[in-house]
Amino acid sequence: MFIPEFRDIESAMELIAPHVHRTPVLTSRQLDAITGARLFFKCENFQKVGAFKFRGATNAVLSLSGSQRAAGVVTHSSGNHAAALAHAAVSRGVKAYIVMPSSAPEVKKRAVAGYGAEITFCEPTLAAREAAAAEIIRRTGATMIHSYDNFFIIAGQGTAAIEMLADIPAPDAVIAPVGGGGLLSGSAIATRHLAPAAKIYGAEPLLADDAARSLHAGAIQPALPPRTIADGLLTSLCERTFTVIRESVNGILTVTEEQITEAMTLIWTRMKIVVEPSAAVPLAAVLANRELFRDKSVGIIVSGGNADLSKLPFAQDA
Amino acid sequence: MFIPEFRDIESAMELIAPHVHRTPVLTSRQLDAITGARLFFKCENFQKVGAFKFRGATNAVLSLSGSQRAAGVVTHSSGNHAAALAHAAVSRGVKAYIVMPSSAPEVKKRAVAGYGAEITFCEPTLAAREAAAAEIIRRTGATMIHSYDNFFIIAGQGTAAIEMLADIPAPDAVIAPVGGGGLLSGSAIATRHLAPAAKIYGAEPLLADDAARSLHAGAIQPALPPRTIADGLLTSLCERTFTVIRESVNGILTVTEEQITEAMTLIWTRMKIVVEPSAAVPLAAVLANRELFRDKSVGIIVSGGNADLSKLPFAQDA
Repeated sequence: MFIPEFRDIESAMELIAPHVHRTPVLTSRQLDAITGARLFFKCENFQKVGAFKFRGATNAVLSLSGSQRAAGVVTHSSGNHAAALAHAAVSRGVKAYIVMPSSAPEVKKRAVAGYGAEITFCEPTLAAREAAAAEIIRRTGATMIHSYDNFFIIAGQGTAAIEMLADIPAPDAVIAPVGGGGLLSGSAIATRHLAPAAKIYGAEPLLADDAARSLHAGAIQPALPPRTIADGLLTSLCERTFTVIRESVNGILTVTEEQITEAMTLIWTRMKIVVEPSAAVPLAAVLANRELFRDKSVGIIVSGGNADLSKLPFAQDA
Repeated sequence: MFIPEFRDIESAMELIAPHVHRTPVLTSRQLDAITGARLFFKCENFQKVGAFKFRGATNAVLSLSGSQRAAGVVTHSSGNHAAALAHAAVSRGVKAYIVMPSSAPEVKKRAVAGYGAEITFCEPTLAAREAAAAEIIRRTGATMIHSYDNFFIIAGQGTAAIEMLADIPAPDAVIAPVGGGGLLSGSAIATRHLAPAAKIYGAEPLLADDAARSLHAGAIQPALPPRTIADGLLTSLCERTFTVIRESVNGILTVTEEQITEAMTLIWTRMKIVVEPSAAVPLAAVLANRELFRDKSVGIIVSGGNADLSKLPFAQDA
């Protein structure tokens, strides 16, 4: 089992830098006043395809061998990884086969199709997704690019933290949302090297608290059936990400659905940027743990901005 | 009737620069591809209080005499000008009396109160607002700062265009939304001086097309009863703004409610920034007039980001 080291994230940074946006780090005096912390938001909602996932996908595509490029790439994903891999592959002339559950948000289906991928719809179960992907691999020889259980994906996701830490002087803490753990693992490897004094936290919905339970139990716990609005954080850890998280992460902070909606409302109304629910989970964790972060300098990875405007959590006046 | 010249906008720029954000000019390859134009968005949604109005209000407050400062300022406004004047005045130790219709959006009432203004609620008619403001002036001697029929306000709003034109090489056109005409007048005066070859357009909802009708008739036409979602653009022109607009603006482009919602959806989903409906009206005008702007370099003033999340125009899934 290969796990990236810091030099692998540095290599990914060099490889993908010409192809990804160097996203801004934004601050907000209002949110600092509300939380009592000094917050630095690394805005991957402004990344291409609207999420950090484009970093890992680009690193994976650029790391293919010649024969792999010719056969194409395949993945199963209901979310941003699907769009990211589609765009990273097709824009470099590599065929992308994407397996999506038919229940995926319309906005994400349209995005994947728009990037020129070949979509195969399947039932919304992991077994159906894996079977559909396996069939495509048999038929085409395409290379599987898992959304987080992949060396190059984890290394690519870690580049957001490299950029962020270049813009933040000596943070006391770094927080990333955790679903399958690709972003958190990459961020942890980069932060341990570049800011060894910083605490590293994952943030996840209480309704999808498998990472917290896994750390507590000392073994990977499966994700519960998905009920949270943070639809990017439904997946379970894998051995690769769990190994990194167990070694390098100081804790997993869990938040309620109400706290996620409150944090998302604050980001939209005070910072005037569009973030998806999953991306608001780290700010929700700061709000739910004020004493832990009081007067601390905190780097937050804002994971994505692909909110489905037809399914917003804000109460609508009649 | 005093009307600002370019040097008055330059003076305003010097006066307010230490107190306002220099907002970014953003571009979007996706929106360029959709419109066929090259668009430059001057993001006043990131301005303090979330709107360009803070520029004019700051200029007006900083231009008060000593005795005027001591007596305070008053205005009647249902929207961003109220918050802007409240913040500009109170943060400099000047008392702010704000008359708001009781029907004003909750988000804007809370903002004005939060900035420390003294609010007087009244019936939602212009007569009631003016009467309430007159009573405050009688009682306190406060100086009336009208939201657009004011020399310093117009000069202050023009500073957004000065900054924008420093960031855009030789635009073919500049578009600003038009309600009372303060932003459009200030933008027109600045653009005529700095980019004399550029066309200048106002953009307004068809349901509040009083500026277009006024230009056509050659005399100010009153605004219709407010029905548009672009609630920042309900007011009528005044002689001061009409004079500038008649002399310097090439045309007023009107758009439907559906076009405003479509443009707002594009800005939120493609650019990942929160803009209020009024701020989407110029992009709606580009979409509705593709031939006019094809291959043209177009500067758009994104007027504000104070969208009421409880009253969004996007259809919600059941």
